[in-house]
Amino acid sequence: MDEPVLLTGAGGHVGEAILRGLGDDYDWRLLFHSPPDEEPDHPYIIGEVQDHEDVAAAAQGVDAIIHLAGDPRPSAPWRSVLTNNIDGTHTVYEVAVEEDVDRVVFASSNHAVGAFETDSRTPEMYRTHHEYRLDGSELPRPGNKYGISKATGELIGRYFHDEHDISVCNIRIGNLNEDHPPIDYERGQAMWLSMRDCAHIHDCALQADYGYEIVYGISDNDRKYYSLDRAKEVLGYEPRDNSAEWNGEEKVA
Amino acid sequence: MDEPVLLTGAGGHVGEAILRGLGDDYDWRLLFHSPPDEEPDHPYIIGEVQDHEDVAAAAQGVDAIIHLAGDPRPSAPWRSVLTNNIDGTHTVYEVAVEEDVDRVVFASSNHAVGAFETDSRTPEMYRTHHEYRLDGSELPRPGNKYGISKATGELIGRYFHDEHDISVCNIRIGNLNEDHPPIDYERGQAMWLSMRDCAHIHDCALQADYGYEIVYGISDNDRKYYSLDRAKEVLGYEPRDNSAEWNGEEKVA
Repeated sequence: MDEPVLLTGAGGHVGEAILRGLGDDYDWRLLFHSPPDEEPDHPYIIGEVQDHEDVAAAAQGVDAIIHLAGDPRPSAPWRSVLTNNIDGTHTVYEVAVEEDVDRVVFASSNHAVGAFETDSRTPEMYRTHHEYRLDGSELPRPGNKYGISKATGELIGRYFHDEHDISVCNIRIGNLNEDHPPIDYERGQAMWLSMRDCAHIHDCALQADYGYEIVYGISDNDRKYYSLDRAKEVLGYEPRDNSAEWNGEEKVA
Repeated sequence: MDEPVLLTGAGGHVGEAILRGLGDDYDWRLLFHSPPDEEPDHPYIIGEVQDHEDVAAAAQGVDAIIHLAGDPRPSAPWRSVLTNNIDGTHTVYEVAVEEDVDRVVFASSNHAVGAFETDSRTPEMYRTHHEYRLDGSELPRPGNKYGISKATGELIGRYFHDEHDISVCNIRIGNLNEDHPPIDYERGQAMWLSMRDCAHIHDCALQADYGYEIVYGISDNDRKYYSLDRAKEVLGYEPRDNSAEWNGEEKVA
């Protein structure tokens, strides 16, 4: 690929999965919040995602942005998500307009819909036989302040898509695990996203044609309660992993 | 009514309609952003809606809040709506939890869904024969930064309903006009909310039983493209006005 792509939040866990899987496939520009431990393989800037100048410097000349930066803690307090996540995401889109960026892929979260997991639905909804599915067309129900900030990021993207014709894909990411999925934790099994599926869905989101999308980013887990239909149909997502195929030590399949 | 109700943004246009129609029906507490021209008939505080102490002082002992305060300009810049509308609404809900408030009625806006009015749909969708309807179950499409802030206010309310069991009614208010509806402006005719219907729908929202609702707040206009079904069914809203019944000078019906 010739076109440069900016990755914000490059030092985080999702950023790591993307760079590990797709490091050679794109001409990356990286935005880090704090200095990385090792010297990155790509041009980078250290800055604040809500700082317009920092983001503009990082985004110069890029054609696409994968926007991961923000406070990643589900328990993050309002003040932090208001600044880092809500204002930060708005800053990224503002810069995208100024830099004539064609597409933004936004790391939304399962926490944007966390409150669908009511006491009366769980733990049944985490089980294989259960038919309950969220598909992205439902109104968000954030389970915490972090979830409010992610659902708001989706709204901000909606505005910038409608007003400035930027292609926007919001990926509601499940639980990314470095190794195998949690074995005895039903929700974690439902929610698992493997490192390679994580890289792959972001690759798809950089390649596919779409206008404005909300998709779920998990592996093809037997226990899933998120539909992958939209990700498969629109993005061409073909997950290779399934948390059910792990027996606790090594992969079964 | 014995239970005190806090009205934030009491000095605005919607606040005026509510106090004019329901001034004697509730034990009002008022929060003004700036000193009112005339001495109010009810206890009041002058303060900032994003200032926790100001809102807490105004909300002391109330059972319900009608939250109108914020920057009301559709053209308001991001910085202002981030602070006044998004952070302000979060402050109101935080105080609602602390003060054990049972319900919050939130002044959302037609601008939360303004981008549904695409070039290809308008002006047809403003016309009587056109069947296009938004009903509140659709994902928001904000038409401006103000609209983003209002849709975010709905999300914040969703969280506080799910987490703290506060009854929340979001009213997507159309265009409130002091006198008659605009005569030669199709969108304005579709969107009109009369002063007395405005007071009435807020009265309904203070009285009805519900969990979390998003309803449209317009009069029963022939040209409407917002469904009033939910407001009628859940709130018992019975609008008395219709922009089609005005001939430009006086009411026809």
